[in-house]
Parts: sequence; C-alpha cells; structure tokens
Amino acid sequence: MTPKTKANEAHESAKPAQVFDRFEIRLSGSGGQGLVLAGVIIAEAVSTLDGKNVVQTQSYGPEARGGASRTDLVISEGEIYYPKPMAIDLLLAMTQESCDLYHGGLKDTGVLIYDSHLVTQVPFARSIGIPFSQLARHEIGLPMVANVISLGAICAITKIVSEAALTKIVTKRSPRGTEEKNMQALQLGLKVGKEALEGSKL
Amino acid sequence: MTPKTKANEAHESAKPAQVFDRFEIRLSGSGGQGLVLAGVIIAEAVSTLDGKNVVQTQSYGPEARGGASRTDLVISEGEIYYPKPMAIDLLLAMTQESCDLYHGGLKDTGVLIYDSHLVTQVPFARSIGIPFSQLARHEIGLPMVANVISLGAICAITKIVSEAALTKIVTKRSPRGTEEKNMQALQLGLKVGKEALEGSKL
Repeated sequence: MTPKTKANEAHESAKPAQVFDRFEIRLSGSGGQGLVLAGVIIAEAVSTLDGKNVVQTQSYGPEARGGASRTDLVISEGEIYYPKPMAIDLLLAMTQESCDLYHGGLKDTGVLIYDSHLVTQVPFARSIGIPFSQLARHEIGLPMVANVISLGAICAITKIVSEAALTKIVTKRSPRGTEEKNMQALQLGLKVGKEALEGSKL
Repeated sequence: MTPKTKANEAHESAKPAQVFDRFEIRLSGSGGQGLVLAGVIIAEAVSTLDGKNVVQTQSYGPEARGGASRTDLVISEGEIYYPKPMAIDLLLAMTQESCDLYHGGLKDTGVLIYDSHLVTQVPFARSIGIPFSQLARHEIGLPMVANVISLGAICAITKIVSEAALTKIVTKRSPRGTEEKNMQALQLGLKVGKEALEGSKL
C-alpha cells in the first residue's frame, strides 16, 4: 500500500476527467431548468455511444433539501456498486441556492461550473463561471436552452462525454422544430467552455 | 357508474398501496417509450403535491441489463436510506423483454402491470394486462402517449399517487400543443385501470 504522494495529487488534479474509475456529477439548480433532462442526455451519450456504465439518481421532497433541484450521475468503466455520489468530481450550479447547498460535496480536486449571472458568491476555488442563462436569452434567444449550453461547456471542460456522442443525443432528444436552436446552444457551450477552461487556472 | 359499496371498500383495502412505509416501483420497457419521463412525473406528483419523499434512479449501459430501459422509484413517507429497489411492489412492463428481465424482482405481494398487446407470456400471477400501445395508437391516435395511459392505470390500480397531483403534473410536463391529447390519455388510463382492477383477482 503506497501512500499518495504530493506529486501524484498534483498530476491528478491537472486534468479532472482524463483517466478515472468513477466520476461523479451533480447537476443542480431550480425546478424547470431542465437539469434532469440534461442528466438523461449525458447518461445516454456516455452509455450508449461512449460505452461506459452510468447510474442517474434524482431525489424529490425533503430528500432534495429545500427547493433546489438536482440530478446525480455516477459514471464508471466498471460496475457501479453504490449508486449515489460520495465525492463529487463535477458540480454544475445554475442558481446561488444550489451552489450554497451542494458545494460541500465536491472533492478537493473537483470542479465547480456555475452560472456567473446567477451565482455571485462563489464558495469553491476550482471553479469556472459561465453566464449560461444570459447566453441562452441573448445569444440563442431561448432561455430554456441554458441547460444545453451547460452540456456543451461540461463536455469541453471535463471531456467526460465525447462531443460526437453528445451531439447525437441532443439532436435525438430535441423536440421537433427545436433541433437547430439546440445545436446552436450546444456549439455555443462547447466554445465558451473551451475558452473558459483556457482562461482558468485549472 | 357503480356507487361505492362496503363490498367495494373491502375489496380496495386488499390492494397493495394503501398503507406503506416504502413503496418500490420499476417502470420498464424499451428506450424511447418515455418511461424516464413517466417516472419523473410520478416523482414530482408524489413529492411536490402529495408530500412524500421519492428517489428515482435509472441505469444505462451494461448496468441496465441488455437493451431494456428502466427507471426505478422508491417512495416513502420517511427518509429513504437505500435508493435502489430491494423488493418491487409494482412492476410496469411495456415489452416482453423487460417483463422477462425484471419480474424476478417483484415481491410476493407485488403487482405486475403489463402491455397485453406486447407481453404475451406473463410470468407472474398477480398481474393486470392493458393494451397500452394499442390504446395509444387507436383511441388517442398518438403512439407516444402509451406512457401517459400507463400513468393513469398505475394511479387507478395502486393509488400510490393521487389523481389530482398526477393530472397537474402531466399537464405541466406536456409539450405545448399536446396538453389535450395527454389529458385524454391520462383519463383513458384511469378508466381502463379501474376497470381492469375490478375485473382482476387482486
């Protein structure tokens, strides 16, 4: 049994999702932001096209702690014995409330991605802010696609899901007539995610 | 319309979901049948309007055992310590494959509700067959609402979710322009569920 060295830790923390056995994601915000659907899209892309195992969980009622909405994903190349997150690798926070509630579950080497228009107090150092809600409204003209922009950003920042798989599943899951707007949103998310990662200290 | 008699009440009290501490539901079928959404609707109705705790889980990849799609719900008035089903109270099987895969998880006093058009070999005695897919196609004219018909039937047969809560959430979750068809589907499900229960030996 070798104790983990500082060198190892530094190496591991440099790239959050390149090599992993178990990767835990929590998508959080308020009801109606389409986060369960965003989770379904990641899960379907990662499993059916990228070939990994995924368990997705969402809790409702007092279980969900307050009015915040959330869905959790555990992704692994091996079997998933425990279906709930234990140490979160990636937290998406689309509201201040959800950020306040859930940042404590992030592991030290985890990453917080937050809506920089709605989350003004950022409690975690390893974080990237992107104004998802503003981009959806002003760049795409459709507030409800903020979740799809966040999917693009998550893909660009973590590489936990491939761009090809994500593109296919977003297209498949878009209600008829909204495919083009959703593709625009996804492309925008990929672009701003890449830029934000490059400009960050992660 | 038959008035409720003492005999009817006695009959109802024999049903599975009147008193419970933990109630476990598995909705299963193939991908694209809208079962995750059906689970989200039950979860939201039971938690936000009926005031219970709910945890919903779905697995993808080899975890999900074959090509069958499923989502699991654990409902409780108390805290939910273990989020995955251990002994299923209600299994909905929308395909033969999912029925074959999952009937073994039913508890002895559980109930199987199956699509009687698609499931021809029924492996569990306490079962109720309803031709959801045929009803959706021929009565509503929209194959994709089979999941909403099944929600109505689950409500009528198990009472695990109130009719009022279910109606509100189905309306809220209907894509714009489909509200009326979804309401028709729900009403149809409530009706055929009630009739099927009365004609069954449960």
